[in-house]
Amino acid sequence: MDDDVPLILTLDDSGSTASAPLDDLDREELPNENGGSYDVVHDASSPAAGDCCAQQSAARHNWEMNYQEAAIYLQEGENNDKFFTHPKNAKALAAYLFAHNHLFYLMELSTALLLLLLSLCEAPAVPMLRLGIFVHATLELFALIVVVFELSMKMRWLGFQTFIRHKRTMVKTCVLFVQFIEAIVVLVRQTSHVRITRALRCIFLVDCRYCGAVRRNLRQIFQSLPPFIDILLLLLFFMVIFAILGFYLFSPNHSDPYFNTLENSLVNLFVLLTTSNFPDVMMPSYARNPWSCVFFIVYLSIELYFIMNLLLAVVFDTFNDIEKRKFKSLLLHKRTAIQHAYGLLVTKQRPSGISFRHFEGLLRFYKPRMCARERYLTFKALNQSNTPLVSLKDFYNFYEVVGLKWKAKRNREHWFDDLPRTAFLIFKGINILVKSRVFQYTMYTVVAVNGIWILVETFMLQGGNFFSRNVPWSYIVFLTIYGVELLLKTTGLGPVEYLSSGWNLFDFSVTLFAFLGLMALAFDMEPFYFIVVLRPLQLLRLFKLKKRYRNVLDTMFELFPRMASLGLTLLIFYYCFAIVGMEFFAGVVYPNCCNTSTVADSYRWVNHTVGNKTVVEEGYYYLNNFDNILNSFVTLFELTVVNDWYIIMEGVTSQTTHWSRLYFMIFYIVTMVVMTIIVAFILDAFVFRMNYTRKNQDSEEDNGIVLEKEISKEEVIGVIELYKRSSAATETAQLQKIVLQMDKYGQMSTVFLGRRSRTKSDLSMKMYEEEIQEWYEEHSRKEESQTPLQEPASASNSSLKPLSLRQRSQTVI
Amino acid sequence: MDDDVPLILTLDDSGSTASAPLDDLDREELPNENGGSYDVVHDASSPAAGDCCAQQSAARHNWEMNYQEAAIYLQEGENNDKFFTHPKNAKALAAYLFAHNHLFYLMELSTALLLLLLSLCEAPAVPMLRLGIFVHATLELFALIVVVFELSMKMRWLGFQTFIRHKRTMVKTCVLFVQFIEAIVVLVRQTSHVRITRALRCIFLVDCRYCGAVRRNLRQIFQSLPPFIDILLLLLFFMVIFAILGFYLFSPNHSDPYFNTLENSLVNLFVLLTTSNFPDVMMPSYARNPWSCVFFIVYLSIELYFIMNLLLAVVFDTFNDIEKRKFKSLLLHKRTAIQHAYGLLVTKQRPSGISFRHFEGLLRFYKPRMCARERYLTFKALNQSNTPLVSLKDFYNFYEVVGLKWKAKRNREHWFDDLPRTAFLIFKGINILVKSRVFQYTMYTVVAVNGIWILVETFMLQGGNFFSRNVPWSYIVFLTIYGVELLLKTTGLGPVEYLSSGWNLFDFSVTLFAFLGLMALAFDMEPFYFIVVLRPLQLLRLFKLKKRYRNVLDTMFELFPRMASLGLTLLIFYYCFAIVGMEFFAGVVYPNCCNTSTVADSYRWVNHTVGNKTVVEEGYYYLNNFDNILNSFVTLFELTVVNDWYIIMEGVTSQTTHWSRLYFMIFYIVTMVVMTIIVAFILDAFVFRMNYTRKNQDSEEDNGIVLEKEISKEEVIGVIELYKRSSAATETAQLQKIVLQMDKYGQMSTVFLGRRSRTKSDLSMKMYEEEIQEWYEEHSRKEESQTPLQEPASASNSSLKPLSLRQRSQTVI
Repeated sequence: MDDDVPLILTLDDSGSTASAPLDDLDREELPNENGGSYDVVHDASSPAAGDCCAQQSAARHNWEMNYQEAAIYLQEGENNDKFFTHPKNAKALAAYLFAHNHLFYLMELSTALLLLLLSLCEAPAVPMLRLGIFVHATLELFALIVVVFELSMKMRWLGFQTFIRHKRTMVKTCVLFVQFIEAIVVLVRQTSHVRITRALRCIFLVDCRYCGAVRRNLRQIFQSLPPFIDILLLLLFFMVIFAILGFYLFSPNHSDPYFNTLENSLVNLFVLLTTSNFPDVMMPSYARNPWSCVFFIVYLSIELYFIMNLLLAVVFDTFNDIEKRKFKSLLLHKRTAIQHAYGLLVTKQRPSGISFRHFEGLLRFYKPRMCARERYLTFKALNQSNTPLVSLKDFYNFYEVVGLKWKAKRNREHWFDDLPRTAFLIFKGINILVKSRVFQYTMYTVVAVNGIWILVETFMLQGGNFFSRNVPWSYIVFLTIYGVELLLKTTGLGPVEYLSSGWNLFDFSVTLFAFLGLMALAFDMEPFYFIVVLRPLQLLRLFKLKKRYRNVLDTMFELFPRMASLGLTLLIFYYCFAIVGMEFFAGVVYPNCCNTSTVADSYRWVNHTVGNKTVVEEGYYYLNNFDNILNSFVTLFELTVVNDWYIIMEGVTSQTTHWSRLYFMIFYIVTMVVMTIIVAFILDAFVFRMNYTRKNQDSEEDNGIVLEKEISKEEVIGVIELYKRSSAATETAQLQKIVLQMDKYGQMSTVFLGRRSRTKSDLSMKMYEEEIQEWYEEHSRKEESQTPLQEPASASNSSLKPLSLRQRSQTVI
Repeated sequence: MDDDVPLILTLDDSGSTASAPLDDLDREELPNENGGSYDVVHDASSPAAGDCCAQQSAARHNWEMNYQEAAIYLQEGENNDKFFTHPKNAKALAAYLFAHNHLFYLMELSTALLLLLLSLCEAPAVPMLRLGIFVHATLELFALIVVVFELSMKMRWLGFQTFIRHKRTMVKTCVLFVQFIEAIVVLVRQTSHVRITRALRCIFLVDCRYCGAVRRNLRQIFQSLPPFIDILLLLLFFMVIFAILGFYLFSPNHSDPYFNTLENSLVNLFVLLTTSNFPDVMMPSYARNPWSCVFFIVYLSIELYFIMNLLLAVVFDTFNDIEKRKFKSLLLHKRTAIQHAYGLLVTKQRPSGISFRHFEGLLRFYKPRMCARERYLTFKALNQSNTPLVSLKDFYNFYEVVGLKWKAKRNREHWFDDLPRTAFLIFKGINILVKSRVFQYTMYTVVAVNGIWILVETFMLQGGNFFSRNVPWSYIVFLTIYGVELLLKTTGLGPVEYLSSGWNLFDFSVTLFAFLGLMALAFDMEPFYFIVVLRPLQLLRLFKLKKRYRNVLDTMFELFPRMASLGLTLLIFYYCFAIVGMEFFAGVVYPNCCNTSTVADSYRWVNHTVGNKTVVEEGYYYLNNFDNILNSFVTLFELTVVNDWYIIMEGVTSQTTHWSRLYFMIFYIVTMVVMTIIVAFILDAFVFRMNYTRKNQDSEEDNGIVLEKEISKEEVIGVIELYKRSSAATETAQLQKIVLQMDKYGQMSTVFLGRRSRTKSDLSMKMYEEEIQEWYEEHSRKEESQTPLQEPASASNSSLKPLSLRQRSQTVI
């Protein structure tokens, strides 16, 4: 914590050596850099304008370009974009800026989604969404043309050389080309051919800026593959040995259909690996000789209980290692980005730091939405020395500080402090009540009673008509209690403080839903039962009671974004397999399709008439088909769950060739990889979190990262002056407000609190604290040795050479 | 490594301060301790014998008692026995010695096994092993009486007070009492009643000295339970919420048998948790409304893919923590044991260390089988200072050093070095050939070709008669190649070196088995196919090629003892459940038993006559019953594998009450606990091992712990002198041999190598190197503060007080 650094910044004190930021404007300095990458254009114009004003304006323009480029460097550092894609000239910069804003990203995303969603309407379409071939092919062409446009913008920005070198973009271009030709062929022939290449459409989604997490996941999966494949081979090796053994042992038994050929033997042992056919595959031989169970027990013990867990262990270990390496490389990448940006912001006159004016210029490009107050606070938070300049050492904390949200620290403890005495006492009473343990535990008891009540009530219903239109009184009673609690808490704590806790937010929304349910009930609306069943969710509140659950649920929320991206990754795999499945297996399974196979029962649909009653005997498995993309997804989910997946496999196989099994087996292995990664991820995240908690047991309850900064009135006025000179009206107005506020309360200074939630990166920072120093040192050593080589290529790097990078990084936490 | 400590021990040099060990005998010293715990008896006798000789003999007797007690302390340290069970007087000591030898342990084990195996012959007996009630009840009574005898010995050793305090023993006593009464009741009534208490027989096995690992596992399982149960509650909570939701959503659909009552809803969601009924449970509602799949997908995603993995994460984390704590406590326990032993071995005259004479006396009791040479080498290995005494600091390494197996270092590089020139050259050639890469890779190629050959051959068989009596020529060719390889390797490396590698041993045994198979084939023996199928095991050799596999397989072998004990733990749980299952469900399932239930098909046994052929339609599931203990074990294994376990559950339930489901559900949860622990264990072991390898990448290939010690001739002669005086003829003879050996080769000294395999404890020592120091310091601080309190209770502790325990521990690796 560095909140007590004394204020030395003496503004407008032009005689002192520590000159104020606004001095910069008078004696227009030149950037240390030769104007970054884009000065070529401006250098051409500057000799033409010979007078001082034009020179000053050119210099200012130069500075603006430097700000721009520094901001781009910082963005690249943050997004882990490699620096070789950095825009190299003004034309590239224009394209870069065009291709790097949310509108463009949204266009990218929506085109990709449109392309993916087309498979809902194409050939084996979802009945309701079927479109004519002409319509969907035209739509596809349109989307592809948009992608062409996007790619051309990217080429403009990257230049042809870099464009060719960028692997992902090249793959995208190839896929685009193939898709284009196929779409035209479809349009010309007016009929869809076997288009497995549609599975490649995912690449358009993966390449989207917003899907960075998915790309990272995919990279991680591919990196975990080599050890995974090693162990998989071990697994398959034992499978083959046991298949041969099983064939020799059990094929003499003619009532055993599972081992009669080597192929069957292999397939059934593969399925046994998933336990999906377990007792059945053993039964015929077990019936003949009870000791044959030893074969299956040994097989399962080795394969399922040992090697499969080994797989998890190896992937988990690799995952751990990759996570750490990834963190390290991102950290060093960010550091390099900061160095690049720093080089562009220091002046020739004062190469030891960045003044506020230049910092402000950077932030204008890096975070255009940030208001003047926040810019100044960020600057102050970074500046840990007593000079008006931010040194490189301080600037290294840029990413930690720039995300902080600043708010004036309120002096009032409660929201009702300003109310009249009587009201204050009442609210104070409510506040104390609400915060008391007795109140909390009473509420827990009510929730528990409510839970039991719901259970008993549901148990009593037993098939009766639970869609009766009269509201059960218990529902009203409990809802009233929750409503009163809500009201008390809101008034006692104030709405802002009340809703700032995630748990309270949860309570609030659940109660709100329950009220909506009551409304729906009162107004006789159909989907009443949907709301009613949300009631038990109140019970989740009970889990607040125990620390472990709080920990678990907090981690769950922290993990959620990452989990979602893993889910999306899985969906992308699903999409590929769904397309392939649809192309090959659409329409092959239907009721009573597989009467010749061993799984005929599951596909049966018979309509007996027993006496005068019609009895329908259904196997239902014909519903697990690849007839359209939605069905395919459900079928693939069933395959993911693994249980009884062989019924689906055998059904399809019996209608096609036995090579179809390959599809199902490959899918199993792919989902196994992804699932193992998911398990490894959850394991890693929780173990990491628990280790972290164990390491920091003293600072147990934390509400993210908080930083305190005090700002005096003079400082604000100084900054206003600065803005006034550069005639920035809105900024000036914003800052004036702060001064007014201070005047109102008669304060000479205001304390601001910067807050942001803790990220995984922060945790890692703390966990690897010692190692990080080593990385930095190693990195700066490497850079020093590399710089002479790089010098002719990038001038911006050389400017950093004289600066010692071997400073202690100070994590602002 | 400390193999180059100079030899300063100047023997028979009585003038020097560093007096030789044999000096001790002349001036009979008194032990520092007041003769340990058992001197009461001898103190009474010593005043009676007034003359010098008698005094000396009493002193010697005193010393013997001290050696004994020190050895007991060290054993207690090693076995992690608590010191409060330490025998307190001579009577207790006699009982202790009686109860602590392998004969007694074997008796314990065999009684326990007899009791467990009785269930093979009791009431629902295995048909072949059925015994009359009178016979098995008498056997049981006999076994129980033996247990009574064992317990009485234990009581004698522990004393009544300690006996009562020792929980495990008390539980055992209670169980014994119940079993006794029941056995008598059975004998009197001449009929077995419902004897669920038989499930408790396991405790007799668990309490065996040889089952220490099982006890540790059980303790670990119980320690992991609290966090496990927490997450389990979360799991069950979501299950209940979804059960209510499912009931509301799907019970209006009358064709859906899975959700028609809340109970069914709960049971089916529990089964769904195991995925065992997966697509089926969804099908009726999915057929009606495709969107109902969302319910199941959400349920499985939350429960199966999230919370179940969370369970693993939490258990893994706890496991990690427990492993470390366990290691710490064992380490400190050993340290305390060493301190106790040390206190008993130092003399009053020289309290700074243990002389060889006393060390030798200790080893005589601690490891009676150790020969004189090894005793001296162990002493030398411990003694890292230049004095003839082993200080406490050195003595702390006792456990690391005492396990070493000592062998004279051979000066010859190859076994054939002494052979005549021609033979030497031939063997040298073979040696070079065998060690060459070309030879190795040729063999790998042969193995690979053999593997493919076997696969193709088996594939071609396709149900033909593969029991033909003529030996396939390929078999002979490959076997010849392997035979030649074996011969070359044995001659080239020498049989001893050849067989010292685990991999070579594996090659050897597989080739041997293949030869046996050929023999069996030649002599027309039936179980030929059993040997034939072992051939593919040769392929395992291919896994030597890659480092990861070597790592994995090495770890596998290292883990094997622990895995076996975990397996045994699982079997103990199986036993309990099998007994309970047999008592309640024996004979309830049989062919066509469950025609009224939903799983009727699986239990069907129909004998159609279609045309003139008899077609048997079998469901086979009636084989999964609890009719005897072997069947129960197989059934329980099927339940462990989880797939289709609900068929077994529903079958049994339909024949009994629906409360039977409780049995199956509890079994599922118990196996889930044990399995999660097993997974956590494998994960932990591998990740630990890989971290270790990563940490010590330079010393990659290690063959366990090796220590080198040089012994000079004079030293040996000195030790011989010592033994001669105490008239130990065998020891003298052993040592004379070494002198003769040295004379033969004209050496003045011989180098001995101490070797043992690396244990988990060694790895942990290295991994926690830094922390161990902290633990030691903390421990000695704690001890210092505790000693004043303990002083009156145990005198042996106080003797350690003046010694500084804060020494650097030196791991002898």
